[in-house]
Amino acid sequence: MSNLFADLPNALPEELVSVLVENGGVRIERIVSNGQNSPEGFWYDQAEAEWVVVLQGEALLQFEDQPSVRMKPGDFIDIPAHQKHRVEWTVPDQPTVWLAVFYGAPIRSA
Amino acid sequence: MSNLFADLPNALPEELVSVLVENGGVRIERIVSNGQNSPEGFWYDQAEAEWVVVLQGEALLQFEDQPSVRMKPGDFIDIPAHQKHRVEWTVPDQPTVWLAVFYGAPIRSA
Repeated sequence: MSNLFADLPNALPEELVSVLVENGGVRIERIVSNGQNSPEGFWYDQAEAEWVVVLQGEALLQFEDQPSVRMKPGDFIDIPAHQKHRVEWTVPDQPTVWLAVFYGAPIRSA
Repeated sequence: MSNLFADLPNALPEELVSVLVENGGVRIERIVSNGQNSPEGFWYDQAEAEWVVVLQGEALLQFEDQPSVRMKPGDFIDIPAHQKHRVEWTVPDQPTVWLAVFYGAPIRSA
């Protein structure tokens, strides 16, 4: 058994991504941010849907052509595939812990 | 956007299961226990694997032929398909909030 809040670094040059489960159609990740945000003008544009929850800290999630969303502990959102989004801001004075479940990737033909 | 800790009932006749995502190969559920446990002698025996984390409260998870596991907030465990398990105990004085991701179900033939 492991704990999502264990081994939280207090300073990080970039986000820390730990893959907890990877199994065909699903990937579960813990992501730790320490005040990081996405580069200006960068958008995530993913082939998978992403269900994501903030478990600690706080973040501002920006969407293309949609209002930004401020996320506090327990807040979750389901981001459809190819919904462009970026992390506008995470709280600088403590680690923000995200849990993300990626799913529904298109089946690749051989 | 919704919150995993919203609308937590303080007394429940049985566990409260909310399906947050259901999409082919994956199902994400919030489960709220209020001191419930699995009936004596009952085992979950699932065709899917289950990744599960306790986010609030406390629980004791029992496995067939394996030591029980006490789970506190942030503790997570990945239960393989058909690993028999049951909830031995949840803390009685507050809601225990679980987040469960079911995945890897066998593909059913038509």
